[in-house]
Amino acid sequence: MLTLDQLNAMSETDFTAALGGIFEHSSWVAKAASARRPFATLAALHDAMTAAVRAASDEKKLALVKAHPDLAGKAARAGALTADSTSEQASVGLDRLSEVEFERFTTLNDGYQGKFGIPFIICVRRHTKDSILSEFERRLTQDQSGAIDTALGEIFRIAALRLDSQVSAPVRLPLHGRLSTHVLDTHGGVPAAGVPVELWELSRDGDARLLLRTVTNQDGRTDKPLISERPVPIGTYELRFSMASYFKAHGAALSEPPFLGVVPIRFSVAEPEGHYHVPLVTTPWGYSTYRGS
Amino acid sequence: MLTLDQLNAMSETDFTAALGGIFEHSSWVAKAASARRPFATLAALHDAMTAAVRAASDEKKLALVKAHPDLAGKAARAGALTADSTSEQASVGLDRLSEVEFERFTTLNDGYQGKFGIPFIICVRRHTKDSILSEFERRLTQDQSGAIDTALGEIFRIAALRLDSQVSAPVRLPLHGRLSTHVLDTHGGVPAAGVPVELWELSRDGDARLLLRTVTNQDGRTDKPLISERPVPIGTYELRFSMASYFKAHGAALSEPPFLGVVPIRFSVAEPEGHYHVPLVTTPWGYSTYRGS
Amino acid sequence: MLTLDQLNAMSETDFTAALGGIFEHSSWVAKAASARRPFATLAALHDAMTAAVRAASDEKKLALVKAHPDLAGKAARAGALTADSTSEQASVGLDRLSEVEFERFTTLNDGYQGKFGIPFIICVRRHTKDSILSEFERRLTQDQSGAIDTALGEIFRIAALRLDSQVSAPVRLPLHGRLSTHVLDTHGGVPAAGVPVELWELSRDGDARLLLRTVTNQDGRTDKPLISERPVPIGTYELRFSMASYFKAHGAALSEPPFLGVVPIRFSVAEPEGHYHVPLVTTPWGYSTYRGS
Amino acid sequence: MLTLDQLNAMSETDFTAALGGIFEHSSWVAKAASARRPFATLAALHDAMTAAVRAASDEKKLALVKAHPDLAGKAARAGALTADSTSEQASVGLDRLSEVEFERFTTLNDGYQGKFGIPFIICVRRHTKDSILSEFERRLTQDQSGAIDTALGEIFRIAALRLDSQVSAPVRLPLHGRLSTHVLDTHGGVPAAGVPVELWELSRDGDARLLLRTVTNQDGRTDKPLISERPVPIGTYELRFSMASYFKAHGAALSEPPFLGVVPIRFSVAEPEGHYHVPLVTTPWGYSTYRGS
Repeated sequence: MLTLDQLNAMSETDFTAALGGIFEHSSWVAKAASARRPFATLAALHDAMTAAVRAASDEKKLALVKAHPDLAGKAARAGALTADSTSEQASVGLDRLSEVEFERFTTLNDGYQGKFGIPFIICVRRHTKDSILSEFERRLTQDQSGAIDTALGEIFRIAALRLDSQVSAPVRLPLHGRLSTHVLDTHGGVPAAGVPVELWELSRDGDARLLLRTVTNQDGRTDKPLISERPVPIGTYELRFSMASYFKAHGAALSEPPFLGVVPIRFSVAEPEGHYHVPLVTTPWGYSTYRGS
Repeated sequence: MLTLDQLNAMSETDFTAALGGIFEHSSWVAKAASARRPFATLAALHDAMTAAVRAASDEKKLALVKAHPDLAGKAARAGALTADSTSEQASVGLDRLSEVEFERFTTLNDGYQGKFGIPFIICVRRHTKDSILSEFERRLTQDQSGAIDTALGEIFRIAALRLDSQVSAPVRLPLHGRLSTHVLDTHGGVPAAGVPVELWELSRDGDARLLLRTVTNQDGRTDKPLISERPVPIGTYELRFSMASYFKAHGAALSEPPFLGVVPIRFSVAEPEGHYHVPLVTTPWGYSTYRGS
Repeated sequence: MLTLDQLNAMSETDFTAALGGIFEHSSWVAKAASARRPFATLAALHDAMTAAVRAASDEKKLALVKAHPDLAGKAARAGALTADSTSEQASVGLDRLSEVEFERFTTLNDGYQGKFGIPFIICVRRHTKDSILSEFERRLTQDQSGAIDTALGEIFRIAALRLDSQVSAPVRLPLHGRLSTHVLDTHGGVPAAGVPVELWELSRDGDARLLLRTVTNQDGRTDKPLISERPVPIGTYELRFSMASYFKAHGAALSEPPFLGVVPIRFSVAEPEGHYHVPLVTTPWGYSTYRGS
Repeated sequence: MLTLDQLNAMSETDFTAALGGIFEHSSWVAKAASARRPFATLAALHDAMTAAVRAASDEKKLALVKAHPDLAGKAARAGALTADSTSEQASVGLDRLSEVEFERFTTLNDGYQGKFGIPFIICVRRHTKDSILSEFERRLTQDQSGAIDTALGEIFRIAALRLDSQVSAPVRLPLHGRLSTHVLDTHGGVPAAGVPVELWELSRDGDARLLLRTVTNQDGRTDKPLISERPVPIGTYELRFSMASYFKAHGAALSEPPFLGVVPIRFSVAEPEGHYHVPLVTTPWGYSTYRGS
């Protein structure tokens, strides 16, 4: 990781080399921002880069947009993406599409390219495969200038996340959301410790993908948030709490099979930078949940 | 449907013919009960029949047990069951097994026959495929006399349900459970009307089978219980409430996607004759449920 | 109680005598309605009477309004009210005012009379002392014509309740609200039977008046609703559930003193003809409540 | 405040002078502990002092017990208590008793003295007036040796709290409990900010004493816990949340009067050193609460 101080002290050439990839194949953005050094904060650096883009001519903006690869496209299959793009697309599973999914993305990409003459650009770290498909549908209804504006907005988000992962700074950019949980046992009046918890991502097609499996600690929480230090991808999730095994271990009188075995809580995330606290307050015979804080 | 009065007035021969099938291939039970007429209630009739079985010799009891077909066995495949057995086995899907499931049942039947020398008998109307498999496992650990006793108990339950469906009486046998729901909108302070509700049966393998789809009425309830007028099969269920569409229609401010879209409530039934009321008390941002009454 | 049939069959004189008190000191209303007989329903009778008032001259309407006594006024103290008025004012405790309260009502009555030249009329069976005081304040801000309209509306409500108590009919007027409760024990997964419940009326001054004390039955409900067969007076109430004694009796592990001893639920009624179902879903360590149906 | 380092470095005389009041009128305890210096922790210092008491003769123990004043007794009225005792008794309101209460305490003190020959000693900072009265009743049923043991246990608790307030140390004694709350608005899906909250102490006689009034912050919490940095006195409390004003300010559709105006949550504290988190999860039409963590 570079530090802001190091970046502030570099020659223009070194600075441009260091941050040339923050905007895909467009090191001119870093070069333009270089002149505005020193930067007191990471936010100031990001602002200088986005200002450079905004000040550029329409041709240059369009070239920047077109410098981006298709999502899950042929370049990705051929291994011809930048390292950043490769890692970003992999994070949401775009490198593991089935043939059917690949066809679907290809059709959508082609439709989008056909309508707007630019690739469909989206900050994938804020999304799931499902929400990308929703965005495709929504953005196919935009007009040309809305399409360009939206593409630039997504490019700025991508740039911010790339800066965040490559430059360390005392104050970080506000890019990170959080998903956490907490299990309260109101049968015993204590935090529920030792409860197996799973987090699943659900797709509109009915697919379910296990994201993680953990166990609650003495305070009924997980040792670290379920998702943190990154945007929480827009999408639908299901938490599954193995409550029957917990209550059985604590000697509660249960029916056989227990009324509540695995408790599923299904919810959707709309703001990747938001804090989603989803507690379970439960007995063997009932429970409640809510968006907490 | 016959009435109790009609049965009380019949000749012994007619009575025995009418109720000869209540105990599988064993009309001697009806004949023995005939002498104890008149019956004031259906319960008295059922008691007389079970008393006749209990008074019989061990050989006769064993013959009664052996008169039953295998569950999902070759006789069923060959269409060689009594009409009652056919309909009972079909009610739980035993007539629609995949090859894999058929093999599994065959293995279990053979194991049970091998150990006890009798068919595995269970009152299928109180069960799901899953709970039958659980019972197979549990009952394979019994001893011979426990196996016979359990088989007779199940036969008595089967007989009661057959009586219930063939004889009308002012007071019915206590064979029927109930599953119901109720949706309260605590965002608006009203019963939630017009909420699409689905009831699914879940299996241990992860299969989900849609049992019914309905909509809540003005009181937030369904016009009739989800399950009634029969035992509620032992098993695991999931209610799915389409809350986002309800709240959207009522003008509530929702995120996009809504925090709560479809709310699943998963629970298990342990007492087929019990009343299971499973309400949903909800806003767009949280909900609670419990075993009500 | 008279029946509608009896009223339909009477002479005009008898009919007028029978219903002459429905409108305070104004038997002309009954006489006018008499001509519109027969009445198929109580609602039709009430409509005929209110139509007679609406059709009357402004002078006659004003006289009807002025025929009413002050609320908690000197006539009441002197025992000079009609039997109906006496019983109505007593129902809300206006016959048991402290000196301070009597002064307050006298001041409000005098202020109202001074501004509008008519007595303050309100259908007291729909109110508590507190909500009457709120109405005084609200209605002192009306203009003259609003004051007369509101007074007539209240007179029609009073008339409907008098009809309801004096005439029996197959279909009753929609005058009755209901307040009920239900206690669910989600520690044990059963309705909470045997829970002592109290219903209190709270005033803005901090006074609390015990309205009734009861105990839940096997279904966790009270044998009859807490309030029914009458309007539920507009006001603030508190239900108090003695949960610690219930859970102690059922062997739950409690702290000493128990975390939850008496659980109070405070709520207000705004629609006297509404159904207020206020359940308690509880364990020794937490609870929820909501306006149910 | 003294530091442990300072205490460890003092002469025996200074040490004894400094801590002579930790045990009421019994500086010999400090003197005995002095020899066991240096103390690495406050707990080690407290252990040394209690060990000195335990090692003393029965006569000396009895003298220590008898060195304590009556609770709310004549010495207190006459201003003849140590500064520590004066402040401790004042903390629970024993300096503000009505004549009736004073008589009651006098009778209990005299009864206790009469039975055991020692004053009734209790660590009042862990109690409310109500729980002191409960303890009087409970402890009057003890035998002589139980009475002495309990008195010593209370003296050790008093000593620990005196140490805690007079000696600073990196690790504090585990004497402090916490009472906190959190208001979640599940109508809007956000923490409820700006909610007026009151904390009341309730007595068995029906008295209610306002302990504090505060307002929730942006996270729906109070800026500091309702009670912290001290034991939470054993007793019964009521939190009162002004929810109607909150929801009115946020534009929610409410009835008039609102169904929920002020929401009271009544609960009791049994463990003064425990953490009591009592959240309110609410809409205008329902709410839940529970002992959280």
